[in-house]
Amino acid sequence: MNRWLLPEDIADVLPAQARKVESLRRSILDLYQSYGYELVAPPILEFLDSLLTGTGSDLNLQTFKLVDQLSGRTLGLRADITPQVARIDAHLLNRAGVTRLCYAGSVAHARTPVGSSSREQLQLGAEIYGCASWEADFEAITLLLKTLDVAGLKKVYLDLSHAGILTGILADQMLDKDTIESLYSLLQSKDRPRLRQWATCLPAKVADGLLALTELNGPCAEVLANAKKVLPKHAAVDQALADLERIVSASKVNNNLELSIDLADLRGYQYHSGVMFAAYVDGLPQPIARGGRYDQVGQAFGRSRPATGFSLDLLTLASLSPLSVRKMAILAPWVQDAALEKAIADLRNRGEVVIQVLAGEAVEAAEYECDRELIKQGSSWEVKKK
Amino acid sequence: MNRWLLPEDIADVLPAQARKVESLRRSILDLYQSYGYELVAPPILEFLDSLLTGTGSDLNLQTFKLVDQLSGRTLGLRADITPQVARIDAHLLNRAGVTRLCYAGSVAHARTPVGSSSREQLQLGAEIYGCASWEADFEAITLLLKTLDVAGLKKVYLDLSHAGILTGILADQMLDKDTIESLYSLLQSKDRPRLRQWATCLPAKVADGLLALTELNGPCAEVLANAKKVLPKHAAVDQALADLERIVSASKVNNNLELSIDLADLRGYQYHSGVMFAAYVDGLPQPIARGGRYDQVGQAFGRSRPATGFSLDLLTLASLSPLSVRKMAILAPWVQDAALEKAIADLRNRGEVVIQVLAGEAVEAAEYECDRELIKQGSSWEVKKK
Repeated sequence: MNRWLLPEDIADVLPAQARKVESLRRSILDLYQSYGYELVAPPILEFLDSLLTGTGSDLNLQTFKLVDQLSGRTLGLRADITPQVARIDAHLLNRAGVTRLCYAGSVAHARTPVGSSSREQLQLGAEIYGCASWEADFEAITLLLKTLDVAGLKKVYLDLSHAGILTGILADQMLDKDTIESLYSLLQSKDRPRLRQWATCLPAKVADGLLALTELNGPCAEVLANAKKVLPKHAAVDQALADLERIVSASKVNNNLELSIDLADLRGYQYHSGVMFAAYVDGLPQPIARGGRYDQVGQAFGRSRPATGFSLDLLTLASLSPLSVRKMAILAPWVQDAALEKAIADLRNRGEVVIQVLAGEAVEAAEYECDRELIKQGSSWEVKKK
Repeated sequence: MNRWLLPEDIADVLPAQARKVESLRRSILDLYQSYGYELVAPPILEFLDSLLTGTGSDLNLQTFKLVDQLSGRTLGLRADITPQVARIDAHLLNRAGVTRLCYAGSVAHARTPVGSSSREQLQLGAEIYGCASWEADFEAITLLLKTLDVAGLKKVYLDLSHAGILTGILADQMLDKDTIESLYSLLQSKDRPRLRQWATCLPAKVADGLLALTELNGPCAEVLANAKKVLPKHAAVDQALADLERIVSASKVNNNLELSIDLADLRGYQYHSGVMFAAYVDGLPQPIARGGRYDQVGQAFGRSRPATGFSLDLLTLASLSPLSVRKMAILAPWVQDAALEKAIADLRNRGEVVIQVLAGEAVEAAEYECDRELIKQGSSWEVKKK
C-alpha cells in the first residue's frame, strides 16, 4: 500500500489554500471580536456522553469513537463544536448575563456528510447565550451575513424556518422520538402522499397543519400571510410567526440578501427550538452555513439557558471565496554579513517576505511570487526588480 | 456522572487564554511567513501506517487508534504533525528545490506526556526540506528563538546535541532496534553503571565512547574541545562536531541566549539524524520546544530529502507568555436606529469592540473591559467614559 494515501474524503490543505483559510479565519474572528464575542477552544476529544448530550442520533452516527486508556471509557472525536460551547457556557463560565462566544477548530465525521466530499472540517461559529428574544437571533443572522461578506461572497440566499411551528401543531399529541424523526424526514422531503398516510392516525386538524407546512415556502410576505390563514391556532405558532416577521422586517435593509421562508425545512432539528436559518451562495448546492435557536441544550449540563448562533466550515468557505492571498517576496543570498542581516530584518519588520537562498536552492513556492532580490551594491544591500 | 466532566488531562481553553493563544498563533505564523515559510494543514486523522511511518515505538504508544467505517482500516488521531508535513513535502509538493513549510494544529496523546499535564496540544512548527547543510539547522534555531521572543520569553537556554555522534561510535556494530532503544534510555538518564554493564559485550573503544558521552555536557567550547579528545575518530563524529561548532559560532551574536551542549541528550531520537536541539525557558522544567535534523523521514514516502525543523506546543507557550491581550470595549444599547447603527459600524471599522446590550443583559466578559458607552446626545450618538 502507498503510505502517502489518505483515507477516503480526508485531504491535506496545501500552501496557497492553507494561507487563504488562515487569512479568512483571522478576518472572521476579528469581526466577531469587534462585536464583543469571546474566543473559546474546547478539546477535540471528550467523553462520548458529554459530546452527544442534548443532540440527536445523527450526531452519534457521525462521531468517531475511541477508547481512553486512562479511564477505560469511550471518547468521541468531536463532529460538532456547538454542544461543547454550550457546556462551557452552562458549566464553566456560569454567568448570569448574556454571553457571546465564538470558536474555530477541527471536527471529523465518521461518514461523509451528504453533499460534501470531506470528512474533516474547520468549524467556525458564534453563539449568544442568555437572551431569549428575537434580537439575539437577528444579531446571529447579521453576523453570519457579514462573515460571508468578509469572504467576498456578496450574494446570499437565506432560508428561514422556525421549530416552534411544529411544536405548536403537535402540541397535544404524544409522539415518541422515533416517530418524530420519521416525521421530520417526510417534511424535509416534502413527500405529501407519504406524509398524508403517516398522519392518518392523527386528528384531521393536525394532519392538515402538517400537510400545509410542505407548501409554506417561498417569498417571506406571502408565506407568512398564508401561514396565518392555514396553520392551526396555537400560542407557539403565533409566537413563531411573530419572530419570523420581526426578523424579516429588520433584514430589509440588506440589498444583497435574498430572503425566503421554508417552514418544512427542519434540518438540524436535533437541538433547535426556535428560529432556524440556512444560508446559500452561488456554486454550492448545500447550505454554506446553518444556525438557529437551541434553548434547551444547556439543560443536560445542569443549566438551561436561551441560546442562538450559527456555524460553517471554513475550508468550504475558503474554497468558494474569490479573495487572493498570494504574496510577493524578495530573494536574498545566505552569507554571514551583518549588513545583509540588518537589511533583511528591516524588510521583514516592514511586512515583506524575504527568502534566503540556501545551498543549492531553487526557490519554488505556491504561496509567494519572488519578484525582487537583495543585491550587494558597493558596501550596501539594495532591493532590485528581478 | 457529571456530563460536564472532561477526560483526565484534557481541558477547555477559556476566553482570555484562548485569545492569547490566537494572538500568539498569528504573530508566530506571520514571523514564519516573513521568512518565506508556506503554511500547510494536514488532516487530524490518517491511516495509522502513514502516521507512524519513519517514527519510533514512542509515537505508536502515544497515538489514539480508531476504526474507519468506510475502509475498515485503523486510523490514527495524530500525536505529531512533523511526519505528516514530511509526507506532504515528499509526495504532494514533490519539488526539487528547498521547501520551507510551517503549520499549527491540534494533536492528541493517548497517554499524558512525561512532565506535561495535558493530552491535547496545539502543535506549531516550521520545517526546511532539501538543504543538507548546517545553515538550514541554523535558520531553524534562529526561527525558534525568534518564536520565543515574539511570545515575550526573552531568556532562553538552548541545549544542542547531534545524532551523528552515536552513529559514528556505533558504526561497525550490528545492533537491533530494541537494543538501540535501551541504549538511548541509558544515555538519556546518564546511568553510567548500567551503561557500563550494557556495553560489556561491545569492543572497549565503543564502550568508552558511550561512557564518555554521559560526561560531555555543559558549556559549548569546553564540551567540543573534550569531545575531540575522548571520542573515537570517525567521519560521522568529525562531521557532527564540525556542525555543532559552526552553529555555536553563528549563535554568538545573541546575548539573551544561554547555549550548552549535551551529547547524551537523545530525546526525540526516533527520527533524528543530525543536529538536535531543545529550548528551555524559566518556569518550565521540560523543554518548551524541540527540533533537529531528520533526513530519512521522507524515505518511507518514496523520496528521501534532507529535513530539519522544530515544533512546540502553543498552549504551553501561551501559558508562559507574559503578554496581555485583554481589550477595552464600548457598550451600546440595542435599539433600531440608523444613526446608532452607523456609529457602531464606524467604531468597529476603526478596530473598537462594541457590545450591544441585549434584553436583560448584564455584560460580563473575561476578554473585554467595558470602559466606555455609546450615549445619545440630542440626535447623535457619542462615546462617553463610564
